[in-house]
Amino acid sequence: MIRTGRRRPAAPRGRRGAEPRVERIALGDLRPDPDALLGRLAYLKLALFESASAVAGRATDLGDREVITRVAAAVLEQHTALTAMIEARGGESAAAMHPFTADVDRYRRRLADSGWHESVLTLHLSAGLLDDFFAGLAAGLPAPEGPRVVELLQRDIGHDALVAVLQAGLGTDKRLGSRLALWGRRLVGDTLLVARAALADVRDAEGRPASTEERRIEPVLNGLIAAHTRRMDRLGLTA
Amino acid sequence: MIRTGRRRPAAPRGRRGAEPRVERIALGDLRPDPDALLGRLAYLKLALFESASAVAGRATDLGDREVITRVAAAVLEQHTALTAMIEARGGESAAAMHPFTADVDRYRRRLADSGWHESVLTLHLSAGLLDDFFAGLAAGLPAPEGPRVVELLQRDIGHDALVAVLQAGLGTDKRLGSRLALWGRRLVGDTLLVARAALADVRDAEGRPASTEERRIEPVLNGLIAAHTRRMDRLGLTA
Repeated sequence: MIRTGRRRPAAPRGRRGAEPRVERIALGDLRPDPDALLGRLAYLKLALFESASAVAGRATDLGDREVITRVAAAVLEQHTALTAMIEARGGESAAAMHPFTADVDRYRRRLADSGWHESVLTLHLSAGLLDDFFAGLAAGLPAPEGPRVVELLQRDIGHDALVAVLQAGLGTDKRLGSRLALWGRRLVGDTLLVARAALADVRDAEGRPASTEERRIEPVLNGLIAAHTRRMDRLGLTA
Repeated sequence: MIRTGRRRPAAPRGRRGAEPRVERIALGDLRPDPDALLGRLAYLKLALFESASAVAGRATDLGDREVITRVAAAVLEQHTALTAMIEARGGESAAAMHPFTADVDRYRRRLADSGWHESVLTLHLSAGLLDDFFAGLAAGLPAPEGPRVVELLQRDIGHDALVAVLQAGLGTDKRLGSRLALWGRRLVGDTLLVARAALADVRDAEGRPASTEERRIEPVLNGLIAAHTRRMDRLGLTA
């Protein structure tokens, strides 16, 4: 059971300015498998890109559509950079991504068929949480991939613009707030499952999957939830 | 009535190598309206990008999905470059695109709900024909936009990769050939309507819309149809 209701003190603001980042995840002594991490992340970004394009296409306002297309473009750049890394390591991107399609597709299906603003919120919260998580995990990868992936995930995909779109919606539709609050609470559980699934590819110094070490993983997940709560707060939504 | 059945002698191969290009359209003495051309083209590229992402998302093979995602990325780059040009002229991209959404959306709707291979063929043929047409039209724009738009539209968005995906499908499904031939014939008529619509924004030296000058437009459209026929031929499809 994931607790989303407990508020935590705000962390120092991160390098992205307006978008506060979670404190660096203490997974540095774990050993993520580079091929698995790159393949999983590349597929996640492909899926997020497709979702973002679909959200853009469903926008009724052409300005919103432009804003979200830019987010899609930024996510696509991340995907492309990841597949380039896979290929630079001698891998083949489709083969590298393949083992992770089922998990990610299930996640997408669970979050599909929502209203348009819910989908925009998904982009904002899901990308925010997963970028934080995978940046922490990638910090444990050796160079050159490790630092490159961290840098890639810390790039701003346009969160401020997504927040502005959501705030405009919240300003004109009084009932949207409670719908989005509900959606954000539902979303965080599903998104944390995606993060947890990635821990299966991470081993500790004794070679055990990190996913079995609940005690050490708990603070990591709490950090992600705290950042999620701050994103909800910024929108005036109860997490 | 558009004749698609008549074969024409092959034109010299263009600079893109494997993809033959139509001979330069003789629209150089016409005067396209820069704002209208940029706005229309930016929206067309946005729509084509969304279609390409959707086609990628519907691919059952992850390798095909990668290929088509790259095409989507290339089209998105064209869209982004066009909106940057609109903004550099002091315009606002959503406002610039707005007058052209109805025409383009109608075109998309007419070509929606097809099989997956039909949608791949649409990407290949529609982008091929419209890039040829608008490159010819943009050649009549003053610098800096004119040469930039021409260069942008002559970039290869990945036609060879789309042809390879189609050929793989044609090789395994014997009935696909006749379905795609039919689709290609239907597609060309709708796509030429999109090209013709753009002529409403183009005036001749006397200020008359170019769309009223059937006699001068006819050779242009014939050149586009010839290039379309060569694309169909390359796939072994009867145009």
